[in-house]
Amino acid sequence: MAVLHAVIMAGGSGKRFWPLSRHDRPKQVLPIAGPRPMVAETVARLDGLVPIERTCIVTHEAQVAPILASLGVGPPPRVIAEPFGRDTAACIGLAAVHIRRHDPDGTMLVLPADQVIHPAERFREVMRAAVEVAERGDALVTFGIKPPYPATGYGYIHRGARAEEVRGIPVYEVLRFREKPARAVAEEYVESGEYYWNSGIFCWRVSVVLDCLRRFVPRLYAALERIGATIATPTEDIVLREAYEPLECISIDYAVMERAEAIRVVEADFEWSDVGSWESVARLRRSEADAHGNVAVGACELLDVANTLVIGDEHHLVAVIGLDDLIVVRTPDATLICPKHRAEDVKHVVERLQRNGFDRYL
Amino acid sequence: MAVLHAVIMAGGSGKRFWPLSRHDRPKQVLPIAGPRPMVAETVARLDGLVPIERTCIVTHEAQVAPILASLGVGPPPRVIAEPFGRDTAACIGLAAVHIRRHDPDGTMLVLPADQVIHPAERFREVMRAAVEVAERGDALVTFGIKPPYPATGYGYIHRGARAEEVRGIPVYEVLRFREKPARAVAEEYVESGEYYWNSGIFCWRVSVVLDCLRRFVPRLYAALERIGATIATPTEDIVLREAYEPLECISIDYAVMERAEAIRVVEADFEWSDVGSWESVARLRRSEADAHGNVAVGACELLDVANTLVIGDEHHLVAVIGLDDLIVVRTPDATLICPKHRAEDVKHVVERLQRNGFDRYL
Repeated sequence: MAVLHAVIMAGGSGKRFWPLSRHDRPKQVLPIAGPRPMVAETVARLDGLVPIERTCIVTHEAQVAPILASLGVGPPPRVIAEPFGRDTAACIGLAAVHIRRHDPDGTMLVLPADQVIHPAERFREVMRAAVEVAERGDALVTFGIKPPYPATGYGYIHRGARAEEVRGIPVYEVLRFREKPARAVAEEYVESGEYYWNSGIFCWRVSVVLDCLRRFVPRLYAALERIGATIATPTEDIVLREAYEPLECISIDYAVMERAEAIRVVEADFEWSDVGSWESVARLRRSEADAHGNVAVGACELLDVANTLVIGDEHHLVAVIGLDDLIVVRTPDATLICPKHRAEDVKHVVERLQRNGFDRYL
Repeated sequence: MAVLHAVIMAGGSGKRFWPLSRHDRPKQVLPIAGPRPMVAETVARLDGLVPIERTCIVTHEAQVAPILASLGVGPPPRVIAEPFGRDTAACIGLAAVHIRRHDPDGTMLVLPADQVIHPAERFREVMRAAVEVAERGDALVTFGIKPPYPATGYGYIHRGARAEEVRGIPVYEVLRFREKPARAVAEEYVESGEYYWNSGIFCWRVSVVLDCLRRFVPRLYAALERIGATIATPTEDIVLREAYEPLECISIDYAVMERAEAIRVVEADFEWSDVGSWESVARLRRSEADAHGNVAVGACELLDVANTLVIGDEHHLVAVIGLDDLIVVRTPDATLICPKHRAEDVKHVVERLQRNGFDRYL
């Protein structure tokens, strides 16, 4: 049996979690969905599946320190620093050339750092099934979440024929990947029973994904080869910077998944959320809600308020009157007030602050 | 010609201006409607009408220091401290017995400390006409504001026959005082042209108002006589406290105006607001609004926001997305978020905080 490696992608800037997330405090290091930072939860979730010495985190060089700090005590995973964010195809390729040096026959499990998944034991069981599928051939294995509701904020996977069952978990062929759908389309997807949420988690052999990158995105592949040749040499940093900077930003979905032939989707029946906005935080934390559906962290006084998320602290009182479905996030130097259905637009506020020179709030 | 005195009533607690107003920082000492504290504006408005040495401010003893501090440089007016707030009849009676000691034939102009009035020159001209009316007889003179819109938050005065014209300003008899009306009733009032807003400003001879208090609220009058007899004696403080404490809270409108015979209303054509809530602050400051009707003090970023008032400072950024007709008031230790039409309910938040033991925010 080949050796399994885990690659945690932690490069997000988390603009949509402003004002809690900042340039030097991205969402993956924040305890947004629970008491622990999300990247620490992701590392902990792998316990018993991949040992820490075969786990690596890929992130922007500016975020290495906050990520390591957020992990707490214990032996740290390896961290691969990107000099520039170039989306997931480059990120995964970079991790692959690092792993290949020592283990060209290895298998990679690729996971975003900012997902909430329960229960961890079931997550590991589903991963083990996928690893079996990946290790025995050339399949690119994805994980399809059985959709509990017709989300419009996620991509979908249209499954094809049933390929097999591994460890009691069904594995399907993939007909097509679908981008975030309109509401009515999402409802059709869910009703058909043939669609999964695209989890953004992948499993494949290192050699298989590198071969796909070579075929589908040859310029990226050439850069990766150049980088791979200098790892652990004196020119590593400068070559990485030179080779990475001109790369196009392209996702692994677009670069590889939508073009490759041998795709499999493993049915994942654990609870899953990619925590894309404050709205999804409100959804995730609904078990903490009071009788009116309000979730409040910190001192607050809510009068005729329902289904509202207030994130603050004990040192500042937030009082809200007569509003529903609101998000209020207060930090020492900035406060956000936003209806839940506008949570995606928080990133536009951050972009405006950038344009207007309010760097101190970024 | 008798001597004119001004009595500024500054006893309000300003719960409706929380979190900017606090127990020891009532609204009258705050620059809520403009750059200067409201009580300082009220004193300044009397310049040229009543000299500062014949101006007194009546307030709660706990508010004497912040009020004097808010007045800035220059000779201060006299301050009469009430040991307990007992509404306007007691407040005015207390001021009257103080004035009577030196000037039993004097005339009093009574003004709330928390009104916004423009222009000051026209205000003084209207006051002079009222003083003429009051000085020559037994009339209790009120001021009726020509209503620019059908407000439901003010009391109204139904005027009767035209009594006279003084300095070119019409003076009417009064048919009846009306409490805050429903919307449809307010519209009828305004349409009829026979109704004024009740400004809460009064003018009368000291002896006339004391005689009314003697006839209509004899227990209050007896307490005032007891207090008056000990002014400037060693027992003044203890007698004031003893006599004041058991008094009923009763307004001058209810105690006197609705029962007296010789009432006059002087038509006041200056711009007037009693600044009763954050909603009226938004209305008063509308000249500062941007193209979307937003008025903002301090650092803020508003995305798809209209007709909103944000009060903050330069040290904390307030970002609002996709909300209209909102009020946001941020102080270092508390933030209020409230739709304009719920502005009256801010006092309920304050009451809840009291009940829940959050004294640090009061």
